[in-house]
Amino acid sequence: MLALLLEVASTPTPGNVDRHHDHDDLRFEHFLAGAVGALDGLAMAARPEGGLGRAFERAVAGMARQRGGNTQFGALLVVVPLVRAHARGELTRDGAAAVAGRTTVADAIAFYEAFDHVDVAVADPPAGIADCDVRRGSDAVPAVREREIDLKGVLAAGADHDAVAREWTTRFERTFAVAERLRAIDGPVLDRAATVWLEQLAAHPDSLISIQHDRETAEWATERARAVRNGDSDIATLARTFQNRSINPGATADIVAAGLFVALQRGLVV
Amino acid sequence: MLALLLEVASTPTPGNVDRHHDHDDLRFEHFLAGAVGALDGLAMAARPEGGLGRAFERAVAGMARQRGGNTQFGALLVVVPLVRAHARGELTRDGAAAVAGRTTVADAIAFYEAFDHVDVAVADPPAGIADCDVRRGSDAVPAVREREIDLKGVLAAGADHDAVAREWTTRFERTFAVAERLRAIDGPVLDRAATVWLEQLAAHPDSLISIQHDRETAEWATERARAVRNGDSDIATLARTFQNRSINPGATADIVAAGLFVALQRGLVV
Repeated sequence: MLALLLEVASTPTPGNVDRHHDHDDLRFEHFLAGAVGALDGLAMAARPEGGLGRAFERAVAGMARQRGGNTQFGALLVVVPLVRAHARGELTRDGAAAVAGRTTVADAIAFYEAFDHVDVAVADPPAGIADCDVRRGSDAVPAVREREIDLKGVLAAGADHDAVAREWTTRFERTFAVAERLRAIDGPVLDRAATVWLEQLAAHPDSLISIQHDRETAEWATERARAVRNGDSDIATLARTFQNRSINPGATADIVAAGLFVALQRGLVV
Repeated sequence: MLALLLEVASTPTPGNVDRHHDHDDLRFEHFLAGAVGALDGLAMAARPEGGLGRAFERAVAGMARQRGGNTQFGALLVVVPLVRAHARGELTRDGAAAVAGRTTVADAIAFYEAFDHVDVAVADPPAGIADCDVRRGSDAVPAVREREIDLKGVLAAGADHDAVAREWTTRFERTFAVAERLRAIDGPVLDRAATVWLEQLAAHPDSLISIQHDRETAEWATERARAVRNGDSDIATLARTFQNRSINPGATADIVAAGLFVALQRGLVV
């Protein structure tokens, strides 16, 4: 929960809601309520055993009890297996991958049910599995059951298009890299998180931008972030540019939230 | 926890840390970590039975696990009995007063132990009970035990000088008035909280200002807040004035946090 709160409080994160920026209908307080609402689901994930998909679905259900809509679906999707790995005493890339690898069809079904609680921006499913489109929510459960897809399998199908899903199939590579950067640099934690957020955006086109706009826009946004890092532009210009084009690097925020969780568990002090 | 988060996020609250203002060594993220850290103690308070003083002491211990120092000691002291009243199914002035009235010497001892975790600004104790000065923390426990003072009795001794203690002896009058105002006015919850915060400061000299400065300064600060309410000054001027004089209306924030808790339980939606 603290990782989610620190992520949304870190500023500036151009295009995203943060301590100093709201969107018209999605405001800072919605993220506060979303993080607190996720508590029961996170507590389920924090037990060594029990359905991980259900823990995620409960976290999303609680998160959605505010009027802003989707605040932390993606962040929870990458944080929940990390919370479980921590509860099992192995918050490492291998430990998190092991948690992902143990997921079942029941976990996949609960994951689909989570989409009933909130509208989530996702890519179209691969050809041939339209019946398993996550946007169908629980309507897709019979198809998921018939195909016997486990939760890691569901996310593997989306890994090409979604940075959060990709964490599940890459042993949480970016998450742990973010955690190390957060611990390596100096300064107040909110400043560190904003710095690492920009580094991440400058290095990785944001998959939410790809989904909401297109791949070219995501690559352009990453170019613009890189220009700020290089000193060829400034962050205020980036913020205005992203705002004017309704560019929301939300996947980058999800990865930073997950990295914050790992960094906090490894001794990052607030 | 959400009430604590919404209170610190509401802005502008001149002189206090809020969404847009930090102090040098006490920053927004310390309040985020303080609220999350209080969780275990708040969960103890949220059971219908069990030591209320211990719940408070555990909340403070968790709150203090960040580097900013005292963030929400006063807010927790007024929220904890309200959480218990809610758990007992009677979150009303009578229900909260009944919780306060049931406190014991054991609750008072745990309250004193809470002062071991963090430095808290409090007034000097009344003449004749210097051995029960809360600032002595657990060193004062033998004196508390000998005098057989229950927790409500401890707070009654401080009610003249401390707005939070006074809530315990006035059936939480200001807390419930704040809750009603928060529900009665319109707009996003953070704006409502900032509006009610200013109303409260304009109506009640802040007891933390009295303790850190003196009674005259607290009355002067309330005059300045009233001038903003009347349109004779503006909030930016108030913020600069308070900052220049290191005026921190922290007791007002504590009451607003408690009012937010009641309002949320009564249907205020984020």
